[in-house]
Parts: sequence; C-alpha cells; structure tokens
Amino acid sequence: MRVLLGIDIGGTTTKLGFISETGTILKKWSLPTIKTNNEFQMLDAITASYKNETEHDFILSGVGIGVPGSVNPQTMAVYDCNNLGWHDNIDIASYVSSNLNTLVRVENDANVAALGEIWRGSCSSNNILYVTLGTGVGAGIVLNGKLVSGSLGAAGELGHVIVDPNGFMCSCGNRGCLETVASATGIVRLYKHYSKNSISKTTAEEVFNRAKSGEQISLEAVDTACDFLGLGIANTVNLLNLEEVIIGGGVSAAGEFLRNKIQNSMNKYLYLNNKEHVQLKLASLGNDAGILGAAYLVKK
Amino acid sequence: MRVLLGIDIGGTTTKLGFISETGTILKKWSLPTIKTNNEFQMLDAITASYKNETEHDFILSGVGIGVPGSVNPQTMAVYDCNNLGWHDNIDIASYVSSNLNTLVRVENDANVAALGEIWRGSCSSNNILYVTLGTGVGAGIVLNGKLVSGSLGAAGELGHVIVDPNGFMCSCGNRGCLETVASATGIVRLYKHYSKNSISKTTAEEVFNRAKSGEQISLEAVDTACDFLGLGIANTVNLLNLEEVIIGGGVSAAGEFLRNKIQNSMNKYLYLNNKEHVQLKLASLGNDAGILGAAYLVKK
Repeated sequence: MRVLLGIDIGGTTTKLGFISETGTILKKWSLPTIKTNNEFQMLDAITASYKNETEHDFILSGVGIGVPGSVNPQTMAVYDCNNLGWHDNIDIASYVSSNLNTLVRVENDANVAALGEIWRGSCSSNNILYVTLGTGVGAGIVLNGKLVSGSLGAAGELGHVIVDPNGFMCSCGNRGCLETVASATGIVRLYKHYSKNSISKTTAEEVFNRAKSGEQISLEAVDTACDFLGLGIANTVNLLNLEEVIIGGGVSAAGEFLRNKIQNSMNKYLYLNNKEHVQLKLASLGNDAGILGAAYLVKK
Repeated sequence: MRVLLGIDIGGTTTKLGFISETGTILKKWSLPTIKTNNEFQMLDAITASYKNETEHDFILSGVGIGVPGSVNPQTMAVYDCNNLGWHDNIDIASYVSSNLNTLVRVENDANVAALGEIWRGSCSSNNILYVTLGTGVGAGIVLNGKLVSGSLGAAGELGHVIVDPNGFMCSCGNRGCLETVASATGIVRLYKHYSKNSISKTTAEEVFNRAKSGEQISLEAVDTACDFLGLGIANTVNLLNLEEVIIGGGVSAAGEFLRNKIQNSMNKYLYLNNKEHVQLKLASLGNDAGILGAAYLVKK
C-alpha cells in the first residue's frame, strides 16, 4: 500500500509515522534528536530508521518534515534551526530525497502542526490561526486554506509579537515579546515574578495545577499570561479577520481552564463582528499533529 | 480604445478616472459623495457622471469601485459603510453592472489603494502592508501578490489592533486601538492630551508643522503617534514576514519627517532578520492610488 512518512523534528525528540493517504496513522515511533552542527548525521539517522521500520507492503509516496526553524520559500533551504545547532541554508529536502528516492517537503513545525489539525483535527474553516504553546510560542497562519509563508518563510512568529513594550527582555533581544509571558517558560517567569522568588523550581504544569486549585500567586501568573495571549491572538484576528483559533502545544494540556481564560481575554480585545465570528478551540491531535501535518505536505 | 473606470468612494468626495489597460490616467474628475440611506442614489449619480464624461472613442471594459467598508468575499455584498449611511449587505456590483452593462468589482478602499501602489506606485515586492493614515487608520495586506480579504472581507483592520490596552477609548468600543493615536484625529487627540487643552482647535497637519519647527508639545504628540504606529506595523511584519510597508493617506503628506520617525520605532520592535529585510516607504500616488487600484480590480 502507498504510505506517506511524516517526520516532526523537535529539540529533544524526533517523531516519525507512516500515514495513509487518508490520514490514518499506520505506525509511529520516535528517535532522540541528534544535536550537532552536522545536520546530515540526524538526516542519516532518519533514513536508517525508516529502512528499519518500513513494512514489506509499504510503498513510500512521499516524505514530509517539520523543523523547528524557517524554510525559505524560494530556495527551500532551512535556516534558524538554532535549537538543533544546524547550519543556516541547508537544503535538507534534496538530501533526504536522494537518500530515499522520493518526493520530500519541509516546513516550519508550527505550520506543520496547523496542517495536521486542519487535516485530521479541530479545524473546520479556511482562515485559521494555530498557536503552539511550548517552550516558546509559535504559530501557523492559514488564509483561504493556504499556509502563509512570508517573504523569507518566517511568517507566524506570534511569539515575537510585542505585547508589552516595557515588559521582560526576550532571548531575541527585544522587550515584551508574547513568548516572554505566554510560553511554558514565560508562565514560570511570571510565577517567579509575582512570588518574588527567582530561585524556586517549578514548571508551567505545576503553576496551572496550583491555579486550578485556587492558589493566588499561580492564578495571577496564569491570568496575566492568558490576558497577553488573548491580546496577541485578538490583534491577529482583527488584522486578518480569521474564523478559527486553535491552541496546541504542551501547555494546551491545561485544557478548558486555559481556553476559557484566553476566550475571556479575547472578548475584551476583539473588534466588532470578530467577537461573534471567531471560534477558539483546543487542538485535538496532541503529539500526532506534527507527523500528520508533515505527511499532509506530500499528500496528493 | 478600451478603458477601465476606477471609482474611489470617500466620505466626502468620490473620485473617478478613466484608466488605460497599462495604468495611465486618461481623464479624472470627482463628485461630492451623496450620503443618504439610499445607496442607489449615489450609484445612479455615478452612472450619470460616467455617461457625461465618457469620450466617443472610449470602450468601457470594466468598472472597479473602492468603498469605505468591507466586502463579503462570498456574496460580494458591501457592509460596514457606516460613514456613508449605507445599508449592510447591498450587492452594489450587480446594480452598477446592470446599469453600465459591464464587469464591476468592489473592494475596501484601503485594499484598493494598496493595489494602486502595487500597480503604478511605490511597491516593488509581493508581501506588502499598505497603511493609510487619514481620519482613521486602514490597511491593505498583500501576501504572495494577492490581497488578503479575511473570512468576512474585513482583513486589514490595523486601525483596530490594540497597541495600548490602557489607552484612549475608541469609537469601536475597545480601548487603545492604533487609530486612537495614529490617525489624524488621534494625533490631534494626543496634542490636546499633552497640552492639557481639550478645547483648542487644531489639525494633524498643524501639529506636524509645529513639530517640524521644534515645538515641544507637538513633537511629543507626533513621537507618541509614530512610536505606536511603529509598534503596530512591526508586529504585523513580525507576524507575516513582510517585505515592504507603504505609508499613504492624508497624514503621509508629512513626508520623510514622518517616515523617519516610524522607521526608528520599527527598528526597536522588529524581530531579527526583519530588521534588515523590510523596507518602509512613502506612497507615491497620492489621491490617485484609489482610482488606479480600483481600475486594477477589473484589469485583465
């Protein structure tokens, strides 16, 4: 049978899956991500792993890859994969394509997750913002059913939209990026800020759990994060007149408690008709969004 | 000869022009806009005016119309033309089309001006934000050479992106919309705010002129407006990875003085590569952008 190989290269783990043309996951597994400045080591590990896991009746009809960086839409070269230690401007699609002798497409990981949710997940429209809340904040924007790449393939940097010009310093060098308060790291930063305790060890998950049980400082951290997140999302909806916003990524495990707070914030900031028009939903595919969306890149 | 009719319906004046297929203005004129709740009166005035102004050798091959409102991309019906007093959801294209027996297309006025600048003006790329600074703040967004409509045709509401959640009340009911500080009205509001004089009569043009001559309060008003404008624009560029930003509308007459201040603000807020990548320019077509862009809607 014809199968697609979907690959989601993350900072720690690389997820792989054989996907049918209709979006069923036939088999999935993962590898530790090899982080060196020789990107080809990781790509060779992927090739070896494919050969190991494929079944005798699988006919590979394409490989899609999601990467934590940008893909230049003209040259298809990958850049800004800083988490992986990769060089800039490497055409990994051509390399994998010659190794596996099939069509290969590469996209940014948040974009790929957005495609996964469109194909098999929560989406039911053509004008979508998919937000992934993890170590950072990423996004995929879909207009008229098509991914927005931007002129250098760096569209969707919702995490670096500035929501508080007097806010925290961001790793990018600017101040008050959404990522500084609304990522997992940002929520912990807010908790430490409000608790005036910069050395306590905690996680975003713990902060959410304590907020759910009513603990005041955690609640303050979560409310601030959700308020800024609602502002950044509402501004994006106001600008692009979107229909649907999907919240995914690790932090979205906080579920309806999180969704409801973002919704309340968005209601304050949305413009006119957008208030009734836009739907805010939780992603439904969890960790599978990446491999499904990657496979979708090479679906006929 | 084959000609296009470009029409730009404004709050006070409606501009019309016969445009060649290559974008030369062959003849232009204007009418006072009739503002009643009978939109067909104005459309009939346009038809009469066309018949009056056309030349014996003109063959009309299409009519494009820019309106100060939104156009539903599914139904092509016009809505939110609040300045004109029009009813919502009127299919003005069909009405004018049956009057003039030719192809008619309608678009939002900021979108139309963006198309004008792309066709015959300042633009030299495919990923553009066109900002019009007038009584309000509007915008047209072009991605991969195509106008972004949004799901209900209301994309480009840069004026209602919230840049200061604790800022001034906006006519839309929200607080701190970009329009409250960066439109002509907004600049006057800031001047009155800083001068603690809410009754003095002045215009944005006067505030700019006094700022240019170094008057402190006017300079403060202009600097604040440009800082917020740079923030709103930089956030849009960060989100969509745009290549070019064009500043048009009445306020853009302030020229390089204005452009330079917005540029300085953008430099503070742009994300990484966008700093070197994006170009900020003044629009070059002035009042003609609307009729040219409207004609472009029906160009083959």
